[in-house]
Amino acid sequence: MRFVYHLPLSPYCRKVRLVLAEKRLPFELRVEKVWERHDDYLDLNPAGTVPTLLEDNGLAVPDSGVICEYLDEAYPDISLMGQTLGERVEIRRLTAWFDGKFADEVTRNLNGEKYLKRMAGRGQPDAGALRAGYANLRGHLEYIGWLAETRKWLAGSTISLADFAAAAHLSVLDFTGDVDWKISPSAREWYARMKSRPSFRPLLADRVPGMIPPEHYADLDF
Amino acid sequence: MRFVYHLPLSPYCRKVRLVLAEKRLPFELRVEKVWERHDDYLDLNPAGTVPTLLEDNGLAVPDSGVICEYLDEAYPDISLMGQTLGERVEIRRLTAWFDGKFADEVTRNLNGEKYLKRMAGRGQPDAGALRAGYANLRGHLEYIGWLAETRKWLAGSTISLADFAAAAHLSVLDFTGDVDWKISPSAREWYARMKSRPSFRPLLADRVPGMIPPEHYADLDF
Repeated sequence: MRFVYHLPLSPYCRKVRLVLAEKRLPFELRVEKVWERHDDYLDLNPAGTVPTLLEDNGLAVPDSGVICEYLDEAYPDISLMGQTLGERVEIRRLTAWFDGKFADEVTRNLNGEKYLKRMAGRGQPDAGALRAGYANLRGHLEYIGWLAETRKWLAGSTISLADFAAAAHLSVLDFTGDVDWKISPSAREWYARMKSRPSFRPLLADRVPGMIPPEHYADLDF
Repeated sequence: MRFVYHLPLSPYCRKVRLVLAEKRLPFELRVEKVWERHDDYLDLNPAGTVPTLLEDNGLAVPDSGVICEYLDEAYPDISLMGQTLGERVEIRRLTAWFDGKFADEVTRNLNGEKYLKRMAGRGQPDAGALRAGYANLRGHLEYIGWLAETRKWLAGSTISLADFAAAAHLSVLDFTGDVDWKISPSAREWYARMKSRPSFRPLLADRVPGMIPPEHYADLDF
C-alpha cells in the first residue's frame, strides 16, 4: 500500500492528496505530528516536514514539490504538468507562486498563526500577522480571479498542478472561514469548479478536533 | 542571446549560473535591483524575484527551481538531475533541503541580514538573527560533511543539482566570511572540489560595491 504522512490542514499535503486522486493512485493517510519529531519519521524525511509519500516498494519521497515531480515522472498517464516546455514553465511558475509567495504572504499569516501555532502549543495568533494575511489575501484573490477570467484554468487551457496548489491553500483558509469570496466572483466560480471534482471530496470531509468549519466549507454551491 | 536577470550574492541566481555553465549554455548577466520594482521586469516575472531566465526565443522562465527543471527538460544532454526515479528523488530532496531549510535557517539569517537588508535600505542586521544563523550553519555543515563522507557527491555517485544548490548557498556565506570551515573538514574538501570547477570561476570573480570578500574566498586551496 502507498502511504501519505500528512496533517489535515496542511496545504502541501492537500495538494499531494488531490494529485494522487486525480491520477487515480490509491493511498492511505497517516497523521504525522511533526512537532513531536519521531525518529522513525525523520528516517523517512530528515527535514521532518509533511507530506512524505511512502511507496509500496519502500521509496520514501519527501516534500510536496518533490512528490509532484516524482508522480509526474513515475505515473505519466494522467499528466497535470502540461505538454510543451512553455506550458510546463507556466504551470511550475504558478505552483511556485502559490507554494512560495502566497504561502509566505497569506497562508503562514493566517493558517500558520491560527492552526499550526495552536497545534504546536506555541501560543496565541499574532494580530499583526493576521492583519497582513487578510490584506495580502485580497490581492491574491484578485490575481486568481484575473487568471480565471483570461484562461480556462489558472495556467492555461487544461487543469494543472497550479490549480491544485492554489485550491489547496484556499481550502485550508476556507476551513477557518478566512476567505471573503465576494472580493472576486471569478475566483469564487473557479473554486466552485475545483470543489466539485471527486478528488476534492475527502478534503471537504476533513475534521480537526476543536475546529468547526463554516457551513459553506463543504457546500458545492456556496 | 540568453539573459539571466540576477543579483551577484543571490544563492538562487548563482545556482542557475552554475547549471547553465555546467550544461555549456552561453548567457549574459543583467543585474536586476528587485527592490526598485521595474514594470518591465514584473512583466517577465510577476513575482518580482531574481533570477529570471530569458531565452532567445522570448520565453521568460522565473524562479530558480522552475528554471532548473526547465533546463533539464529543454537541454537534456548534460543532466544534473539523475537517471533513475530514486536518484531524481534524492537530488530534488536535497535541492529542496538547501533552497528551503538551509535558506530559512542559515542564508536568510546571515546573507539576508547583512547584504539584502543593506541593499534595500532596510537598516542594520538583527543580532538575534545572526546568532541563530551561525548556530544553524554548524549543524548544516556537519550534515554536508556526513553526506560527503558517505557518498562521492552530496546526492550520490555523480555530481548533481544538489551539489550546486548547496555550493551556491555556501559561496555567498563564504563571500561575507561567515563559514568556519574547521567545523567539517569533509565539507571543506567537498567545497574545494566544487570551487575548482570551471563553472565556479565567474562566481569567485563577483564583486559587490562596499564589500570585500576574505582572502580565501577565491583561493582554490583555502
